[in-house]
Amino acid sequence: MTHFSLPDDLAIRGKNSGTIIMLVLDGLGGLPHPDTGRTELESARTPNFDALASRSSLGMLMPVGHGVTPGSGPGHLALFGYDPIESMIGRGVLSALGVGLALEPGDVAARLNLANVDVDGLVTDRRAGRPTDEDGRRVIGKVKGAIKAPDGVEVTLVHEKEHRAVLVMRGAGLGAQVGDTDPQRTGLPPVPAKARHPDSERTADIVRDLLEQTRGILSDEPVANAFLARGFAQYVRYPTFEERYGLRAVAVAKYPMYRGAASLVGMSVDGVPTSNEQTVALLEDHFGSYDFYFVHFKDTDSCAHDGDFAGKVSAIEVVDSLLPRVMALEPDVVIVTGDHSTPALYREHSWHHVPLLIASSWARPSAGEFGESACRGGDIGTLPGKDLMSLALAHATRLDKYGA
Amino acid sequence: MTHFSLPDDLAIRGKNSGTIIMLVLDGLGGLPHPDTGRTELESARTPNFDALASRSSLGMLMPVGHGVTPGSGPGHLALFGYDPIESMIGRGVLSALGVGLALEPGDVAARLNLANVDVDGLVTDRRAGRPTDEDGRRVIGKVKGAIKAPDGVEVTLVHEKEHRAVLVMRGAGLGAQVGDTDPQRTGLPPVPAKARHPDSERTADIVRDLLEQTRGILSDEPVANAFLARGFAQYVRYPTFEERYGLRAVAVAKYPMYRGAASLVGMSVDGVPTSNEQTVALLEDHFGSYDFYFVHFKDTDSCAHDGDFAGKVSAIEVVDSLLPRVMALEPDVVIVTGDHSTPALYREHSWHHVPLLIASSWARPSAGEFGESACRGGDIGTLPGKDLMSLALAHATRLDKYGA
Repeated sequence: MTHFSLPDDLAIRGKNSGTIIMLVLDGLGGLPHPDTGRTELESARTPNFDALASRSSLGMLMPVGHGVTPGSGPGHLALFGYDPIESMIGRGVLSALGVGLALEPGDVAARLNLANVDVDGLVTDRRAGRPTDEDGRRVIGKVKGAIKAPDGVEVTLVHEKEHRAVLVMRGAGLGAQVGDTDPQRTGLPPVPAKARHPDSERTADIVRDLLEQTRGILSDEPVANAFLARGFAQYVRYPTFEERYGLRAVAVAKYPMYRGAASLVGMSVDGVPTSNEQTVALLEDHFGSYDFYFVHFKDTDSCAHDGDFAGKVSAIEVVDSLLPRVMALEPDVVIVTGDHSTPALYREHSWHHVPLLIASSWARPSAGEFGESACRGGDIGTLPGKDLMSLALAHATRLDKYGA
Repeated sequence: MTHFSLPDDLAIRGKNSGTIIMLVLDGLGGLPHPDTGRTELESARTPNFDALASRSSLGMLMPVGHGVTPGSGPGHLALFGYDPIESMIGRGVLSALGVGLALEPGDVAARLNLANVDVDGLVTDRRAGRPTDEDGRRVIGKVKGAIKAPDGVEVTLVHEKEHRAVLVMRGAGLGAQVGDTDPQRTGLPPVPAKARHPDSERTADIVRDLLEQTRGILSDEPVANAFLARGFAQYVRYPTFEERYGLRAVAVAKYPMYRGAASLVGMSVDGVPTSNEQTVALLEDHFGSYDFYFVHFKDTDSCAHDGDFAGKVSAIEVVDSLLPRVMALEPDVVIVTGDHSTPALYREHSWHHVPLLIASSWARPSAGEFGESACRGGDIGTLPGKDLMSLALAHATRLDKYGA
């Protein structure tokens, strides 16, 4: 696995150079509003981002490839400098790391949905009516107390949020080439777990057995009476940020998924913020103890998924209002970008390039605004996502000259 | 052979999504006129292209690589999403497909020029005075009637146009590593066919024999008394548009060469237009029966080869005047670009990036003009030619998200 696009023998200069803060506004890139011709970011009042842009290198980030719409996993791996195609990892592993499970190489993880199935075995609700966290935890607890793991396999069940949970299997000879059991719509029976590769036959057998046991255990449970499993993935150890870049790194993120992606590359996670303000407060707490700070804001993406243009504009303005506190920490390099675009008009992740800003003493500024139009005329040009870290390290004067 | 730069496991979303029309103005990219500083495209009055540009994503297409001047074959393969280096194919195969021959894997094809050779064996006219199609056909017929194919080899001769014809050899153990016999200028003898690889020794022997027989057969023929052969190429089957993209595709092109390139990737060819107007009329006839329409206009390139700046400007204006009929079909995605640049001042294909426009509901517009200057400030940035199809599929919402 070659993750890093720098020459192999390009040396990291040392551990006492510049600090880097990477602010990720999830789904930042947008499309112009038909009435104004301005995207969400261009519509937002962002005096702080704009002032920063006037002394930053700007560009457009291409997370995975031309025309490729990234999921959150590949989007973040690219931001962290890991080739998102070569180091593709399934959602199950990200979710397991996100809930704080310490995975070992070979572990197979999947996401579970609590669901309702009728007397004919057809799915009536793929999310069990979105139960409260309390109900969700209770149902998972019930299954944990009664389920029997097959010989030689350790089974872990953890409730995540509402109808979502995580399943982890540990043991020799497991494989993750197992198809989803979620039929994707109601009125169909769950899909029996099926191996897509002979390596995973035994794992598929185990999953079928566990899901069958669950049906029995939950037969009288009113909230949910079945699990749907998806996103089977096997954990492989990634080279860490410290190993690859010499950076002691920490992640500050409200949502488990993004803490999971950060853990995957060896970032520390210490504390879970519950608001944007707390996110910055936790960054302030950590500042000085690490070299690299990954800070994640989710609301931009959530609003865009709802088609809420104005909501995404506001979410951007909230982060802008917190920027002075970030800058007051006086980091050497500040990056502002997204893991992908989620245009409010498109209501989904999209393939469009993402605005990118890199502020440092060594920036080559071009325009006094942070937005898609200014960024596409910026100094950086179109940057493949996986190359962002090398640019960040350069601005932090953490890379040696290549060759004499 | 990996042609497509998308991740291997990125799924094509389905067959019932958006329709795509790709308009290729051959050799579209140009260089500025010294008097005006405006390229051919920028000099042309193109109200329809400009209106379309104001609601399109713009960019610059790099057909093969920085500094690489593509031939028509690689240029078009790149537009179709096939890596033009890995899937390089010789002109002979393209010509054979262009005249409608059904090739089989292993067939070796070459282009033939009817030529004149004097009593000393020196070429006096490499194009036999550009004979009429009728004369050309008659000469080829004469050779076909008399030539003897070597044992185990099937030989096909087809007249193409004026002095041009195609030779196809079918049989076991043929190779295409055979040098051109065209000496490239008059006053020299034809170059004896020579193998460039041991695999092709027998094929070179066969070609020498066939060309010698031709000299005998045509010894009293006033129009042409020799063939010059070039562009030896072996046919390999390419994955089709339908296999790779789930697209039923059709090509509309006046010239055989471009229909050949389209056939190579499994596009249908049904009807041959003889004018630009007929080209659009044939597109109108086909519209609704396919998912992807490749529409080729040649005059831009031909004028530029003659150094005719004004002629190329007019050729662009002609296509612009036909654009409203294309748009009236209401395709979901319209692409306007070229397979390479042919600046009238340079009089040849060149390596310069080519203006690119992608119109769809999901475009991110920037400027109200279609031209090199506007395109280089566009949203797409510099796009490797082989990545155009993934962007087209994305705009047609035909690609799944990559990763969770």
